[in-house]
Amino acid sequence: MNLAQKLGYPANTKLLMIHADDAGLSHSENLATMQSLQSGIVNSCSIMVPCPWFYEMAQWTKQNLQFDHGVHLTLTCEWENYKFGPVLPVSEVPSLVDSNGHFYKKREQVREHAAAEDVRKELTAQIEKFLSYGLSPSHLDSHMYSVGSRPDLFEVYKELGRRYKLPVQRSRELSDMVGLDESNPIKPEAIPVDKVHIGDISYFEKGQLWDYYAGVFDDLVEGFNVILIHPAFDEQEMQGVTVNHPNFGSEWRQIDFDFFTSDFAKAQIARDDIQLINWTDIRNIL
Amino acid sequence: MNLAQKLGYPANTKLLMIHADDAGLSHSENLATMQSLQSGIVNSCSIMVPCPWFYEMAQWTKQNLQFDHGVHLTLTCEWENYKFGPVLPVSEVPSLVDSNGHFYKKREQVREHAAAEDVRKELTAQIEKFLSYGLSPSHLDSHMYSVGSRPDLFEVYKELGRRYKLPVQRSRELSDMVGLDESNPIKPEAIPVDKVHIGDISYFEKGQLWDYYAGVFDDLVEGFNVILIHPAFDEQEMQGVTVNHPNFGSEWRQIDFDFFTSDFAKAQIARDDIQLINWTDIRNIL
Repeated sequence: MNLAQKLGYPANTKLLMIHADDAGLSHSENLATMQSLQSGIVNSCSIMVPCPWFYEMAQWTKQNLQFDHGVHLTLTCEWENYKFGPVLPVSEVPSLVDSNGHFYKKREQVREHAAAEDVRKELTAQIEKFLSYGLSPSHLDSHMYSVGSRPDLFEVYKELGRRYKLPVQRSRELSDMVGLDESNPIKPEAIPVDKVHIGDISYFEKGQLWDYYAGVFDDLVEGFNVILIHPAFDEQEMQGVTVNHPNFGSEWRQIDFDFFTSDFAKAQIARDDIQLINWTDIRNIL
Repeated sequence: MNLAQKLGYPANTKLLMIHADDAGLSHSENLATMQSLQSGIVNSCSIMVPCPWFYEMAQWTKQNLQFDHGVHLTLTCEWENYKFGPVLPVSEVPSLVDSNGHFYKKREQVREHAAAEDVRKELTAQIEKFLSYGLSPSHLDSHMYSVGSRPDLFEVYKELGRRYKLPVQRSRELSDMVGLDESNPIKPEAIPVDKVHIGDISYFEKGQLWDYYAGVFDDLVEGFNVILIHPAFDEQEMQGVTVNHPNFGSEWRQIDFDFFTSDFAKAQIARDDIQLINWTDIRNIL
């Protein structure tokens, strides 16, 4: 049986999850994520534990456990002026931080510097802190897919999924994006996403991000589709967080929010051939 | 010779510093502090090292060392949804944090729980981190004057001033506010503020904070006056930081910004009997 059948749908169903990354990053990201989830079609999110606004998102989520929420395992901080680092003391995970004790900006730096044991300790601490707030994670995923930067780190990621009995997000496209050779057979407990749909800087730069999203519903495959978005508002805080970083910057994130709370998008997912699912559904059949 | 004379002014001069607390707290606080300093009459600030936006403020300050900047030593986090904790690992300063590893909200909790040795270690780490960013602190002061919550913590504060050869902000009024018995004679190296002028919640609630500020220039004493302000903007981020906390909330901070960048305020300090000074001037004669 394929995933659709296991979930009780015909084998050729187009399963779709619309997933908001990066909750906890900032107040703007939190508000936009909450409103996106409440709006209707965004049906999953994941939260960054090491970030300054984690506490607010955790408190809200604990009061709103009906919304699917996972751990957005974090090993990088890509921003110019807004910095965060490990949950653990830097002396315990020295290979994960720069000279100021912050996460590296790029996954290539994770690939170069990170000791697998430090990654295991830090990501375990992030999951344990998440659990200590009374949350009920539906899955694990990875900020900037940094866990895919080296095969041994990817093994840690899969190991954490087994240990905590949680699905881990993985897809061949994301692995290709980060240069991970996924030649090993995919193990049964790690359900791969069949197609990840994510905006690209080329669309954004040409002012075509909205159009890309408008067309994405025609581009779903049979199987498990995930649209990855980053809702936030194009206001002062988020402009500060993403300064000099138009890729997934505040303007981009405002478009994500606007589109996926729009009547147009809601009308699209009412099509007969699209079935919304989320990580909670998948966790429940594992 | 009194302070005015040591600085080269007549003995009866009304010395005035307009000082912005809480830089580093948020992006909003940072932008408003920078603009206040650049606007002209706000002539000193202090930066909170443990806060999420410290990095941004430190980078800007390093490029703008002409602006007087001190260390806003921090032992409390008074906000409901926005949390931060020690620079040191919580395991090294367990008496300073709640069960989530964040600073306590109130100085009374610092009084009850804080071990003096933990305060010494943490505040030293804050100063050392500040220095490691290439900054040149003019003074030390204390967020919410928490160092005044117990006499032994106040001794740590004065000790740090001696060790780093920096003036420490102290005033009889602030001590009275926090219930500190300052019966010990004031040591020569600790120059007390003769009068601290700070808004009160009663003015704010009656909509009279602007009027209070407009009158403060008529209320200066001969000697060392400090107006303590907290400039920020009444926008989404700051509303989130200060939610359910109108006392020094985002509306209050917007008034601080508006008033102390206004032409009215600038005209006031042009009076013949007011002499602007800051901590750098004082540090230089210590």
